Amino acid sequence: MTICLAANHFSIMVAFKGIWTKDFWRAVSGEYLASLIFVLLGLGSTINWAVGQEKPPPADLVLISLCFGLSIATMVQCFGHISGGHINPAVTAAMVVTGKLSLAKAVFYVVAQCLGAITGSGILYLVTPAAVRGSLGVTTVNAGLSVGHGLLVELLITFELVFTVFATCDPKRTDLGGSAGLAIGFAVAIGHLFAPEMAVSIRLAELPLVCFLWQVYWVGPILGGLLAAGLYEYLYCPDPDVKKRLKEVFQKDSAGRYREVETEDIPIKPGSIRTISTLEQAEKKDAFLDTTGEVLSSV
Amino acid sequence: MTICLAANHFSIMVAFKGIWTKDFWRAVSGEYLASLIFVLLGLGSTINWAVGQEKPPPADLVLISLCFGLSIATMVQCFGHISGGHINPAVTAAMVVTGKLSLAKAVFYVVAQCLGAITGSGILYLVTPAAVRGSLGVTTVNAGLSVGHGLLVELLITFELVFTVFATCDPKRTDLGGSAGLAIGFAVAIGHLFAPEMAVSIRLAELPLVCFLWQVYWVGPILGGLLAAGLYEYLYCPDPDVKKRLKEVFQKDSAGRYREVETEDIPIKPGSIRTISTLEQAEKKDAFLDTTGEVLSSV
Amino acid sequence: MTICLAANHFSIMVAFKGIWTKDFWRAVSGEYLASLIFVLLGLGSTINWAVGQEKPPPADLVLISLCFGLSIATMVQCFGHISGGHINPAVTAAMVVTGKLSLAKAVFYVVAQCLGAITGSGILYLVTPAAVRGSLGVTTVNAGLSVGHGLLVELLITFELVFTVFATCDPKRTDLGGSAGLAIGFAVAIGHLFAPEMAVSIRLAELPLVCFLWQVYWVGPILGGLLAAGLYEYLYCPDPDVKKRLKEVFQKDSAGRYREVETEDIPIKPGSIRTISTLEQAEKKDAFLDTTGEVLSSV
Amino acid sequence: MTICLAANHFSIMVAFKGIWTKDFWRAVSGEYLASLIFVLLGLGSTINWAVGQEKPPPADLVLISLCFGLSIATMVQCFGHISGGHINPAVTAAMVVTGKLSLAKAVFYVVAQCLGAITGSGILYLVTPAAVRGSLGVTTVNAGLSVGHGLLVELLITFELVFTVFATCDPKRTDLGGSAGLAIGFAVAIGHLFAPEMAVSIRLAELPLVCFLWQVYWVGPILGGLLAAGLYEYLYCPDPDVKKRLKEVFQKDSAGRYREVETEDIPIKPGSIRTISTLEQAEKKDAFLDTTGEVLSSV
Repeated sequence: MTICLAANHFSIMVAFKGIWTKDFWRAVSGEYLASLIFVLLGLGSTINWAVGQEKPPPADLVLISLCFGLSIATMVQCFGHISGGHINPAVTAAMVVTGKLSLAKAVFYVVAQCLGAITGSGILYLVTPAAVRGSLGVTTVNAGLSVGHGLLVELLITFELVFTVFATCDPKRTDLGGSAGLAIGFAVAIGHLFAPEMAVSIRLAELPLVCFLWQVYWVGPILGGLLAAGLYEYLYCPDPDVKKRLKEVFQKDSAGRYREVETEDIPIKPGSIRTISTLEQAEKKDAFLDTTGEVLSSV
Repeated sequence: MTICLAANHFSIMVAFKGIWTKDFWRAVSGEYLASLIFVLLGLGSTINWAVGQEKPPPADLVLISLCFGLSIATMVQCFGHISGGHINPAVTAAMVVTGKLSLAKAVFYVVAQCLGAITGSGILYLVTPAAVRGSLGVTTVNAGLSVGHGLLVELLITFELVFTVFATCDPKRTDLGGSAGLAIGFAVAIGHLFAPEMAVSIRLAELPLVCFLWQVYWVGPILGGLLAAGLYEYLYCPDPDVKKRLKEVFQKDSAGRYREVETEDIPIKPGSIRTISTLEQAEKKDAFLDTTGEVLSSV
Repeated sequence: MTICLAANHFSIMVAFKGIWTKDFWRAVSGEYLASLIFVLLGLGSTINWAVGQEKPPPADLVLISLCFGLSIATMVQCFGHISGGHINPAVTAAMVVTGKLSLAKAVFYVVAQCLGAITGSGILYLVTPAAVRGSLGVTTVNAGLSVGHGLLVELLITFELVFTVFATCDPKRTDLGGSAGLAIGFAVAIGHLFAPEMAVSIRLAELPLVCFLWQVYWVGPILGGLLAAGLYEYLYCPDPDVKKRLKEVFQKDSAGRYREVETEDIPIKPGSIRTISTLEQAEKKDAFLDTTGEVLSSV
Repeated sequence: MTICLAANHFSIMVAFKGIWTKDFWRAVSGEYLASLIFVLLGLGSTINWAVGQEKPPPADLVLISLCFGLSIATMVQCFGHISGGHINPAVTAAMVVTGKLSLAKAVFYVVAQCLGAITGSGILYLVTPAAVRGSLGVTTVNAGLSVGHGLLVELLITFELVFTVFATCDPKRTDLGGSAGLAIGFAVAIGHLFAPEMAVSIRLAELPLVCFLWQVYWVGPILGGLLAAGLYEYLYCPDPDVKKRLKEVFQKDSAGRYREVETEDIPIKPGSIRTISTLEQAEKKDAFLDTTGEVLSSV
């Protein structure tokens, strides 16, 4: 396949070329639907139904952790081949910095995730009896935790999650068996099982909804996600093809212009575990153009 | 293989041709047995054994959710290759509208599921001491929930379940690893982990038994199932073969009659995850005849 | 490979020929070790450590069920390729009636399972402080349950377990993914999650140790296991090769003697899920001789 | 590939040749990072947040066990292909005695594990409010348990874990499906579910940090690990190649010198489950030199 790096192709246009396709809108609506179901089920598990009783039993943290973890596992199983199953702005951000998704598309993804989370919370609010609605959808940093500590905890949890996503979806690995969705779901679950009371306060960190309320729920996870993505892709398991192609992109031909680069799609082994859909494989090429946009537009 | 669409083949006959086979009755008895075991184990986990004690501990919702989820996982593992492992009228309904099972066969499936559920409940009733039988097998919409909300919750939960079934059993996917049964079982489990007290009231929604009692337990799940099946099969992952064949079925030859259509069986990759048995692959052909029955009988 | 059915081969000798091999004793010691670890861990999880306290919290039934289920999963993972990972006399009995293990070898298996269970209980007794030893290793039918009901419950639970074993290890299936050990482990777990208080009383049904105490813990599970094995192998998924060979074994040649039968080993697909080890594949041939022993010795 | 066993190759040098590579330091830093995250999450789940309240609820042992087990599963998923995912000095020791890792490299691994555990504990200490820090990171043998019994329990639990690691990563097995990480994670979980109060006292046995405090937390696990490794590799599933090569290494040529031995890499089946990375495959050759070092240096 040939990617034309001619001067009249502005990266934003190229990116949008991919956006006005049926497949992309399918992907965006998939992110919306997956975020809706995830927030509805996960948030629903945190409602304390015994709120009116004297001596209500404490929240069952195993129940909440399993519900969040298995909901993510199920959504990745359902939408992995449609949208990649991000469901989390931190994952989407990590995909952008590693050239797996163009920035323009990522914006649509994050908007869809936020709208899905709002819809999910709204449905939950609708079907929950007024008496037990309580602090639904509102989360505060635990009294004993400073904002800095909260940010650190979220950074660590999202680091662990995004590292798992990259390790699980690495097309170079042939040593993995089992369900990719379950591996990612369990990575979410341990973030909730860890330090339960912290988890109660930061449990909603991955819900885009609450991100509207506190900047801290954006900064921590996204920093953690970027750190994990960078570490995995550039230190631990660099893709030789990516390196080579990055070089070629910047090679000028003898006439001093950037030449057309021949790239082959990284072959997808049938049966290999890949939640990053082929859609995003195709993204890579756009992403290259995207990240080299400044260079190109100056030509 | 050739399917003859001649005028003297009434769809109902064709469907019954498939029904009077050993394989089909094996499948129907499999649905019966799977529903029996699922209802016995799942319903059994909801019995409150401490009912007679002062201050009985509350129901352990993690236990109930895991029992329902892992029972479905085990039954799909056991009967997936025999009957497809539906165990739920909403799944069977979704298979019918997507042309994966003929309506005539689906009737037998649903009857078998109901009989299995009744037998399972009966055995449980038999082995449960009278003191703890309590409200066994009787379910009411939670006091705080209106009927409309209950229906909405069930619709959502069944939507999520049936979407997972279709995504997991999609023969076009090569990106899935792990156990199909477990993926579907966890989709059931999160429906129970979500909003525990709701779950207590709707927990039995998938049991055909209680469906005899309240129309709401039929309407919600079946609507959710049909919505999920339609969305998956026609919007997200349409099968190009199905589209093509649908067109061909309605093509008349030059003489104005419907012509014989040559169809090839969709090849089943060995090792691919498919709980929909080959039996149902074969069904597809019947189903086509079935859904085009009105046209045919008018010829 | 040729199996000689000459008159001077008594079935018991043939069976023993296979028994005096390194592989068989490895398998027997594997059953011993697996039963030891399973009983040690599973039984250990049932100890009530708070026994001395006022108001001890009730037993955590999720903990006990997960411990039993995941211990079986782990032992099948560890010993599936060494001994087949039976760990349960009911599974061994089911293997015998379906011709997958000779009766003579099964006797050694069951003895090893019992010795392993005794050793495991002994180690647990040794390391448990005297104060909390309580009713360790002793199990009684729940006060509210009659012996007949207890037997029925055990029959049902073992039926479900053995059916799962046969469905999971069926070499004819190509539709299964995921871990065989986990599938079987979860089938054990739901037997414990089901009707918790029953589970408390029958929880030890699969421990060969307690079987010394009550006949009921032998009869129920073994009946259930045989029923499941028969139903699966002869009704649901009959192996055409087995049928054909059974016929051939009884074919006499023109001289009126049983002729040598050429059998090919059922090819084992690499990567397919099979916990029944190749050792037991080889057993099949012995088993045929074994079950036809009466015929042979009369020649 | 040819390994030169010439007299001037001291084993320690050969081992170090492999150590001064980018891949090895990637592996060591992987062990550091995996141990850091494992200790942070696992230890975090043991904090009793209700410590200040009157009548604090007891520790949720299911939560703690799942957090330890699923954290290991996730770390093996993340770092299995980078470092082998040992995370535990007992696993590293077992790899050394079976010739899968050289002693010199193992020292770096264990140091990295200890540093990772210290860093993880430090971060947890930092983010935990002073009021609930309690006995964080300090573990004592349960009052009712003698030191000898504690050592025995740890030996047994680590035996079970290391046996699972070897059975799961055995390249000779073709009968395994599912996730290697999950299988190993569940083997860790049952060690925690077993005898909960014991587990409370020995729960930290696998944390290298606490190993600085008590010799017993080194001796028990490492003995158990070596026993499991020896039993698996030399009794249950001996690798014929290893035996053959061991013989060849000691064969002298006609001139009385050790001759060059031609070894082929054991072919790694694509798609097979192997958490022991190819890095360690390569180790084998060093390891041979390493264990035969005395012989070589005397030539």
